[in-house]
Amino acid sequence: MNNPIGVFDSGVGGLTVAREIMRQLPNEDLVYFGDTARVPYGSKSKKTVLKYSRQIVRFLLTKNVKAIVAACNTASALALDEIAAEIDIPIIGVVKPGAKMAVETTKTGNVGVIGTESTVKSGIYNDYIRELNSDITVVSKACPLFVPLVEEGLLEDRVTDDIVGRYLHEMKEYKVDSLVLGCTHYPLIRNTIKRYMGENVNLVNPAFETAKSLKEMLTEQKLLNEEMHKPQYEYYVSDGVDKFISFADSVLPCRVTDTTVVDIESY
Amino acid sequence: MNNPIGVFDSGVGGLTVAREIMRQLPNEDLVYFGDTARVPYGSKSKKTVLKYSRQIVRFLLTKNVKAIVAACNTASALALDEIAAEIDIPIIGVVKPGAKMAVETTKTGNVGVIGTESTVKSGIYNDYIRELNSDITVVSKACPLFVPLVEEGLLEDRVTDDIVGRYLHEMKEYKVDSLVLGCTHYPLIRNTIKRYMGENVNLVNPAFETAKSLKEMLTEQKLLNEEMHKPQYEYYVSDGVDKFISFADSVLPCRVTDTTVVDIESY
Repeated sequence: MNNPIGVFDSGVGGLTVAREIMRQLPNEDLVYFGDTARVPYGSKSKKTVLKYSRQIVRFLLTKNVKAIVAACNTASALALDEIAAEIDIPIIGVVKPGAKMAVETTKTGNVGVIGTESTVKSGIYNDYIRELNSDITVVSKACPLFVPLVEEGLLEDRVTDDIVGRYLHEMKEYKVDSLVLGCTHYPLIRNTIKRYMGENVNLVNPAFETAKSLKEMLTEQKLLNEEMHKPQYEYYVSDGVDKFISFADSVLPCRVTDTTVVDIESY
Repeated sequence: MNNPIGVFDSGVGGLTVAREIMRQLPNEDLVYFGDTARVPYGSKSKKTVLKYSRQIVRFLLTKNVKAIVAACNTASALALDEIAAEIDIPIIGVVKPGAKMAVETTKTGNVGVIGTESTVKSGIYNDYIRELNSDITVVSKACPLFVPLVEEGLLEDRVTDDIVGRYLHEMKEYKVDSLVLGCTHYPLIRNTIKRYMGENVNLVNPAFETAKSLKEMLTEQKLLNEEMHKPQYEYYVSDGVDKFISFADSVLPCRVTDTTVVDIESY
């Protein structure tokens, strides 16, 4: 099926998921939407995140997408089930694939989950993980300063080291050996997190797992694009094209040119 | 005139301005709107901040306010002039009163301004200050980590000390003796800023100056409420009533009970 795949996020972070999809599904067209006007979602209520996600899904459907990826952990946590029941095409989020990999890799049975306030409060990682294996202990922690630190460029910095230590010391105390980076910004400080947690702790990046799940799903449902071609990527944002392009260029393997502002509130 | 005064902000920070108005104008009714769904404004474009501010002003006009205070520095910087030309009631922001006080208090002629990325980029503090006295040198600096640090509660913390030093060392190099705290969250870390800058630097809190300007304006335009009564305060937000109430209770001198969620996108 030649239609594009829709990918959305609260802002730019979901580009790390788009990048994995481009790598693992190099024959698929993508339409990316980043809600840069209303970012971040991580501290918002379920009601608001659901409303915003519905508007974005309505926009993506006007682009005739064949499937949708909620590349934002918070939207995946708070809005995915409701939206899946409302639309006729498949939609997948980043939470389930991340949870699955965490369960597969833990040996101690102690899994850690870090994310935004709203993702952690939703308890959804815990639910999925314990659905897969109810013997697993899940330790979850909201890390609200990680996104601003990443956005300020402090990827390798004594302040980031300090904050990582404060947020993650419980993960060490509980002997977590598999830690889900449950927010698209967190893989950008994975080196700092790895240094603190130690070599024996496996860091799960849901972006990678999500692209893998998407490929499996498209294959099963016979939705893969069979026609060999150079893929088309379109980008839409709700605010700030220039800022988006400069971040996108630092993340994606290809130059981003075609970016359009959308009045998302009207969808 | 008995009608209430409308006060709005991108979120909860403007409550520090509302508090000053309650103190200095204890006979006035207030209607406060906090755009907690779309907070923060500090990294958004002029177009988006103007659009959001217009929606809020339209909402406040339905409450028959006699005057409006843009309690958000970013909205004051990016949207005030346009909106003032569009409505029939007076509107004041926090930038002009803050700029005026900075000019009045500097002795060295070197004034510092700190704020969000969008406020600093707008250059509006510089414009106002140099309109009042073109001999003044203005040193401005965006401090994007201050809001997340305040919201994480790190008001007195080695990390906040560290970040304050990084953002403000130029202020010391330029021998700034008057520093405008150009974002409503910054007065909450004024002790840390004071400790770093030293006793001889005057910290200007636009919230206080704005309430003073509002009082002068209402007096001049004969808009003061002459009827002695217990003031009525109403609160509206676009998301998260509980979180708003808990912050409001820590800032305001009175208990906040009457808070309502508004679908601000429909205005």
